[in-house]
Amino acid sequence: MEIDLPDVRAEVTAQFERYEKALVSNDIAVLDELFRKDSRTLRYGIGENLYGYAEIAAFRAGRPAAGLMRKIDRTVITTYGRDTAIASTLFYRDSAPGRVGRQMQTWIRFAEGWRIVAAHVSVIDETKGA
Amino acid sequence: MEIDLPDVRAEVTAQFERYEKALVSNDIAVLDELFRKDSRTLRYGIGENLYGYAEIAAFRAGRPAAGLMRKIDRTVITTYGRDTAIASTLFYRDSAPGRVGRQMQTWIRFAEGWRIVAAHVSVIDETKGA
Repeated sequence: MEIDLPDVRAEVTAQFERYEKALVSNDIAVLDELFRKDSRTLRYGIGENLYGYAEIAAFRAGRPAAGLMRKIDRTVITTYGRDTAIASTLFYRDSAPGRVGRQMQTWIRFAEGWRIVAAHVSVIDETKGA
Repeated sequence: MEIDLPDVRAEVTAQFERYEKALVSNDIAVLDELFRKDSRTLRYGIGENLYGYAEIAAFRAGRPAAGLMRKIDRTVITTYGRDTAIASTLFYRDSAPGRVGRQMQTWIRFAEGWRIVAAHVSVIDETKGA
């Protein structure tokens, strides 16, 4: 098990950055592309638990497009072998002072490219999670 | 990429069940065993963000042992290839009525066995996350 192979890490970092840009600009096509189209894909969101790609895509489509900008911090991307990676980051929004978000994604490489198969996003008081 | 190979899934399920039993009985030795001893291991907890095995082990050692019992629901374990798995579950505690917990773990198989390399635990209102 080789960890953080530079070429693998660079690939995942590029996809993570695409995802972040798509998130804050509400580019639903890219967000949908990067989650794997499969019933086993799972996303625990800030206020919802979504089972399978269809529920995730429906959530994206119904989400308000305003107020998505955020600042990220302490991003950690770690790759295990050539086909698995975990991307974790804290995030902050001006609309939620004193609160820190945590986003964790597991990415798997498929024939079609790197895809998120599981994600968990939550927000807690900053005093607890700094 | 073969998903949910039965023998792989059985192995991970057994370790997931060991973890759950250890969690509710505060068996720190088993909890420590199952998180990978590495500075890249990451755990976002209900009220804390822990970077690296040392911070995770310190948290376990300082945690009150009371009130850990919980009921789990909608557990989903999915394996990708022979060395990667994601285990996700909802959980409920009698001490937190109306709230639902979400626990997501990424497991990797190393020479020493299956280990958690990243975990995220959070609690939200049940009306949102049911």
